[in-house]
Amino acid sequence: MAKFSDWVSSIADAGRELLPGKNRQGKQRTLIELCHEACTSKGEAMGTAIADAVVRGYQSLDQEERIAFFQQLHREFGANPDEILRCAEAFKQSQSIETYRALSEAIDPPRRKVFRAINMAPNGTATLIQMRKDVLALLKDHPEFVSIDDGLKNLFISWFNRGFLTLERISWKTSADILEKLIAYEAVHEMDGWDDLRRRLASDRRCFAFFHPAMEDEPLIFVQVALVKGVAGNVQEILEAPMPEVDDHDFDSAIFYSISNCQDGLKGISFGNFLIKQVVVELQREFPQLKKFATLSPIPGFRRWLDGERSKTSSPVMNGAERQVLELLKSPTWMDDASAVEQLEPLLMRLCAHYLHDEKRGAEPLDPVARFHLGNGAAIARLNWLGDRSENGLRQSCGVLVNYAYLLENVEQNHEAYVNEGQVATLSAFQKLLQTP
Amino acid sequence: MAKFSDWVSSIADAGRELLPGKNRQGKQRTLIELCHEACTSKGEAMGTAIADAVVRGYQSLDQEERIAFFQQLHREFGANPDEILRCAEAFKQSQSIETYRALSEAIDPPRRKVFRAINMAPNGTATLIQMRKDVLALLKDHPEFVSIDDGLKNLFISWFNRGFLTLERISWKTSADILEKLIAYEAVHEMDGWDDLRRRLASDRRCFAFFHPAMEDEPLIFVQVALVKGVAGNVQEILEAPMPEVDDHDFDSAIFYSISNCQDGLKGISFGNFLIKQVVVELQREFPQLKKFATLSPIPGFRRWLDGERSKTSSPVMNGAERQVLELLKSPTWMDDASAVEQLEPLLMRLCAHYLHDEKRGAEPLDPVARFHLGNGAAIARLNWLGDRSENGLRQSCGVLVNYAYLLENVEQNHEAYVNEGQVATLSAFQKLLQTP
Amino acid sequence: MAKFSDWVSSIADAGRELLPGKNRQGKQRTLIELCHEACTSKGEAMGTAIADAVVRGYQSLDQEERIAFFQQLHREFGANPDEILRCAEAFKQSQSIETYRALSEAIDPPRRKVFRAINMAPNGTATLIQMRKDVLALLKDHPEFVSIDDGLKNLFISWFNRGFLTLERISWKTSADILEKLIAYEAVHEMDGWDDLRRRLASDRRCFAFFHPAMEDEPLIFVQVALVKGVAGNVQEILEAPMPEVDDHDFDSAIFYSISNCQDGLKGISFGNFLIKQVVVELQREFPQLKKFATLSPIPGFRRWLDGERSKTSSPVMNGAERQVLELLKSPTWMDDASAVEQLEPLLMRLCAHYLHDEKRGAEPLDPVARFHLGNGAAIARLNWLGDRSENGLRQSCGVLVNYAYLLENVEQNHEAYVNEGQVATLSAFQKLLQTP
Amino acid sequence: MAKFSDWVSSIADAGRELLPGKNRQGKQRTLIELCHEACTSKGEAMGTAIADAVVRGYQSLDQEERIAFFQQLHREFGANPDEILRCAEAFKQSQSIETYRALSEAIDPPRRKVFRAINMAPNGTATLIQMRKDVLALLKDHPEFVSIDDGLKNLFISWFNRGFLTLERISWKTSADILEKLIAYEAVHEMDGWDDLRRRLASDRRCFAFFHPAMEDEPLIFVQVALVKGVAGNVQEILEAPMPEVDDHDFDSAIFYSISNCQDGLKGISFGNFLIKQVVVELQREFPQLKKFATLSPIPGFRRWLDGERSKTSSPVMNGAERQVLELLKSPTWMDDASAVEQLEPLLMRLCAHYLHDEKRGAEPLDPVARFHLGNGAAIARLNWLGDRSENGLRQSCGVLVNYAYLLENVEQNHEAYVNEGQVATLSAFQKLLQTP
Repeated sequence: MAKFSDWVSSIADAGRELLPGKNRQGKQRTLIELCHEACTSKGEAMGTAIADAVVRGYQSLDQEERIAFFQQLHREFGANPDEILRCAEAFKQSQSIETYRALSEAIDPPRRKVFRAINMAPNGTATLIQMRKDVLALLKDHPEFVSIDDGLKNLFISWFNRGFLTLERISWKTSADILEKLIAYEAVHEMDGWDDLRRRLASDRRCFAFFHPAMEDEPLIFVQVALVKGVAGNVQEILEAPMPEVDDHDFDSAIFYSISNCQDGLKGISFGNFLIKQVVVELQREFPQLKKFATLSPIPGFRRWLDGERSKTSSPVMNGAERQVLELLKSPTWMDDASAVEQLEPLLMRLCAHYLHDEKRGAEPLDPVARFHLGNGAAIARLNWLGDRSENGLRQSCGVLVNYAYLLENVEQNHEAYVNEGQVATLSAFQKLLQTP
Repeated sequence: MAKFSDWVSSIADAGRELLPGKNRQGKQRTLIELCHEACTSKGEAMGTAIADAVVRGYQSLDQEERIAFFQQLHREFGANPDEILRCAEAFKQSQSIETYRALSEAIDPPRRKVFRAINMAPNGTATLIQMRKDVLALLKDHPEFVSIDDGLKNLFISWFNRGFLTLERISWKTSADILEKLIAYEAVHEMDGWDDLRRRLASDRRCFAFFHPAMEDEPLIFVQVALVKGVAGNVQEILEAPMPEVDDHDFDSAIFYSISNCQDGLKGISFGNFLIKQVVVELQREFPQLKKFATLSPIPGFRRWLDGERSKTSSPVMNGAERQVLELLKSPTWMDDASAVEQLEPLLMRLCAHYLHDEKRGAEPLDPVARFHLGNGAAIARLNWLGDRSENGLRQSCGVLVNYAYLLENVEQNHEAYVNEGQVATLSAFQKLLQTP
Repeated sequence: MAKFSDWVSSIADAGRELLPGKNRQGKQRTLIELCHEACTSKGEAMGTAIADAVVRGYQSLDQEERIAFFQQLHREFGANPDEILRCAEAFKQSQSIETYRALSEAIDPPRRKVFRAINMAPNGTATLIQMRKDVLALLKDHPEFVSIDDGLKNLFISWFNRGFLTLERISWKTSADILEKLIAYEAVHEMDGWDDLRRRLASDRRCFAFFHPAMEDEPLIFVQVALVKGVAGNVQEILEAPMPEVDDHDFDSAIFYSISNCQDGLKGISFGNFLIKQVVVELQREFPQLKKFATLSPIPGFRRWLDGERSKTSSPVMNGAERQVLELLKSPTWMDDASAVEQLEPLLMRLCAHYLHDEKRGAEPLDPVARFHLGNGAAIARLNWLGDRSENGLRQSCGVLVNYAYLLENVEQNHEAYVNEGQVATLSAFQKLLQTP
Repeated sequence: MAKFSDWVSSIADAGRELLPGKNRQGKQRTLIELCHEACTSKGEAMGTAIADAVVRGYQSLDQEERIAFFQQLHREFGANPDEILRCAEAFKQSQSIETYRALSEAIDPPRRKVFRAINMAPNGTATLIQMRKDVLALLKDHPEFVSIDDGLKNLFISWFNRGFLTLERISWKTSADILEKLIAYEAVHEMDGWDDLRRRLASDRRCFAFFHPAMEDEPLIFVQVALVKGVAGNVQEILEAPMPEVDDHDFDSAIFYSISNCQDGLKGISFGNFLIKQVVVELQREFPQLKKFATLSPIPGFRRWLDGERSKTSSPVMNGAERQVLELLKSPTWMDDASAVEQLEPLLMRLCAHYLHDEKRGAEPLDPVARFHLGNGAAIARLNWLGDRSENGLRQSCGVLVNYAYLLENVEQNHEAYVNEGQVATLSAFQKLLQTP
């Protein structure tokens, strides 16, 4: 059976012949001219050909041209506020379906029509995701591009809705094509080539990813799980564990030690919460002996927050003596100095527990990973002293890692209490750290 | 791997336990109360459980309750015109992304939130399609339900976009589960059970269907093709042809003799044009010897139009003598009377050609099937006298059938000329009938 | 990817052009001449073309020609006893690998070379199976054809060895192509078309089949299972049970109520024992709540044996009064006569238990179905009075059915005890019938 | 669906419990005792458990124990010559099927029964292949083990017959599990890890392998093809060609530049000829523009033969001056010395052509690769001067490579002429070298 992409290509080829090579002024069409045509052309082949030309045109832009393109897309392809107001008044008057439709049409900015047209071209969906990635990278300097970001995100939310995602197990039997993407996309604990990947897909590990039917070779997000005995607290132990010689099933815990989004252009389209919960169900089915499901997660904002507190002349979370102890962190090898470690450990553990539990941004925790897992309904289970001795781990959180526990029987109550009352679920091992005087 | 539907079910089960059995008045929740909750609840499991309760509740309604439910959905779940106007004015003022988002939110009626929530429940998508089917059947008596129709159609257009459809060949190796649906859904030439189906899937026939990944066992539309020598003009010859004894490839034409939409609830979401063109590409790849691709199509509006003209005191398309000849149609067995047939044939063929080519509804042909194929870029190739002697064929079009030709090299020009200039493409055999004095 | 069969066809086509149309006498080759060439030709394409010609030639034979063909195959394609003896003496002398190979070659009859060549032709394997079926049907009148039967069976044992079989679940999602074969092959309780089949594939039923990779659309054997509460004793209750409205899992027993071999030509190549045991493992995995696995089996030889005893002037298994009671069986409606049933039941149940347990053919039970299940390691669990009221059931066994229980923990001991000591395993419900005075 | 291997494992587990841990002397069973039991035990589970024990036992042997094991297998598990002779005489006497069967049984050595039993164990087939590999490696020192080799090969020929093999395309979408085996098994031009592999699977390359259904993750043989413009003569150019930037189809030739057998234990079970021809059919279907199909092959025996001739005091193939020129080969860098190359090229090309075409071993060419391709029906097309400058290429054949052309229209005639008359097919470019004075 010819794949859809082949067929789209053949349609685009057919349309290309119909497409006059030049615009009305006899010049080569510009990308923006093509976008204008993409909003209006009615034929399928010609429409596909134009969309294809937009895709190719976009892919050939350099950074400067891309900015110019986005500027035009922002200025010339927005909704018309006068027209919207006119339609809104007409709707208020008659409240008929016709006036509602006219209003809906008026509010739909032309750039979204361009995006929908692009989606029909070969590689259209992937190009749109790339485009949003490019826009997001420019937002800081060009805040007005949020209109483009918004238009794309809006479409992605509808297209990438949960009902269309498929969960796939990733194993050493998965195609090399997909596996090499895992190596590239792993964002939490970098993979060192095929041998490292192979270790992470051994019989005491699991890996799962979400895919979307329109991009069957592109994982959207993936999670890596270690099956271990007892809840793991140290990520190097997981990453460097030797390959098991025999398959034994003498484990009782599943540790989610890495979750990586693969598509920057899908930022803010949340898949992670579905993924973890669906993987928990899947693992429970495969291994009824599993008792505990927990992450082993970084605390990316701890050190930054801590340094902020230290730089203030006074902070309610630490006294002078403590402030002094923290000076030990100045040595780049503090973690190898037994005495420094002995002094730092109780202090950093207490401060980190405080940071995770009590430091907020609005109603939510300051730490982004905490927001994610608590929002999913997880509970903070335990802090792990020097759980990640990598350079990155030490820089982010003085090496502290945290376990978030997913207890399926509580996850929904936790979630509701968190969303509605801002309540942070914790387990007793963690609670003790909070009570430390 | 657990399927998504299993997992959704387990989530719904989990949520159900959280869901208080009663509303705040201590009574069993009504379906409408559940819908209100579906718009607001934030937890995933609880949200899924509520959506699941809506699905089950809806499925248990009788016709009267269903009407009452739709009335509430229409009245209580619409957009708020005052709010919309307020947001539109704010947007006009500031033209910021925030005011745009507020306006977008205001224009999105709560009922669409309900529908999106339902889509997350087990069998959610299928229930929504069923719901729209029910609404469409009530529209005549309840025109206000167009608001519900509109909300659903709007979502379906996004979800069922072409990029997500997959073309599948249907053969005798397809699962019985899907094949029995073909028997049920065949709308053009009814199938008489499994033996009839088997004939239609023999080596000189082809059948293709579109599927959507969220409903993998439910065809959306399918087309049946006969591979024959010369363009076929008689549908009974196709349906009753004996099974071929050996596979021979001595054919040069592919005749699309039946296209059936399977989902009434997806009315107006067009798949047919993609389907035919994709199947043409597919067949050309499999059988390079194919020279002609044409439909063998009914003319559903011909007789109705003809009877209209006959009932007028005078009509520009027929003179008195001709009007007299048409009286022969009163005999229920006219087609078996050689003399009647001899007089009727030239007259009806001319009138039918005129009807297809020149009778319009606005800029488009009056005949709905003609509108569909001409809109796709096909050309009217030939009329076939007594091409369908079935009761239905005689009643609709005095037994006349028409071939619409799909010539890939012209299909896009035809389409553009039709859409932009209302031009009807014809081939010479048909043109002659138009020139008959 | 081109399938092997396509490729073999293209090779055969290529070879056909090389193949001289005539033999050395300038006449059309006979089938036997082709067989002689099949043993000697060395080229691949030519060899395949010759094999293909043999396949087509064989398929066109009528019954008389077939007998003549088998006679030649028997006479002209046997091993040469003188040569064998010569080789055996040489081997005895030297005991070298060369003399062993020469002996092996001598003992391999040319007809087996013909069969191996045929196996390379398109549809070769299926033709060989058909050929053995034809031979078996002729054995009674042509006992010498056992040489052909033997040659084929010998090859089949190697080709169809257990390691190459795959177990597949058959469901309503299976292809119609395979399902129609189930309807045709069902040997125990005839299926009445697609509706009956669909019932047998509902959510409270299971069906499994063995397939061989070289014949992927041809089931070799299949078993039908009913999932019920309590061990079922009546087959009509199973066959006529209404479709379940909802999927409930309120069952504790799996009843194997029908096992059918599909290929007559594979007679004596045993698959059934593997099938039942593998299905038990499979069902236990899917439904851990299953407690009992039992067949509901016919007793095909009971009535024949009973009539034999009745025809003797005296029999140790029945006294005069009992002999009198059995006269009631003469009425064709005895099972509807309450009084007759009351007298017959205890007597027939006791006699049937005796028949199954104590009547032997050599060391094994007289009843063929009993031999099969007891040989697999099953135990006789229970007799069911009027468990099969169909015409066939009454004729074979006065309507009595038997449950053979498969208790995985005992099945291997039972098997060993049966094979080595001829011991028949029984459960207590059945044992009581044996003790009836 | 539980896989067969799972099920076999569960059967083996069941049987293991039945299996007395000790032999009759109360000692741990030896491997040979287990083999004796494997020939006689009748129960399925117990049989599988014994076979499984044999597999595990075999895998734990060290080299010395393995030799001892093979010696017992050779001595104690052979056919009985007296019994064979007795049966052969009985058969000659009666020529009945019973005596034939007795003879067949007598000739089947007990070790073959052991092998068949092992084949039923988990990993049985793979263990047997390993066993033959071990035997082959010992044959030189233990020629008597040919009896074991013979018994295994005999079974493999039946099990791995062509009808059961499936051709699969290997691409970058193939599972990593299989791809890493390609890296390991590549025998002709070693692969330098995953990047090198990826290059060999790019859009201008093809790779195909044969698989057997009983070992679905183990390729049996694979071939690597380069799609190029003009027949390639230099293998480094193929291996080092940069990745193509775009997919273009501007090629007309398919070059088979590497064929590797994967399973040493299947030596002598020929797959290569089927593979090449099936791949030619496959490639022609995908790329109708392909005009030429040729190998780029090593000439492994040329240098050895040449050195042999040089060591003779006189040789008919070279005169004294030529002999002098060949002295240039003594310099390890002769190929970088323009003058040496100029003198050597015409001479070595002529001698190599002579070697391939006229030097025989019996009726067949002396060169093993030539025997393989000519036996398949290929023709010698061309010699390529310094076509392989690798160390191995220079050592084997002074860097000369040869193209064997597969012309489908001639391949069968060539094959027959080669087999029947020893005729070597050549194309004109090669013929010229033969005629060089």
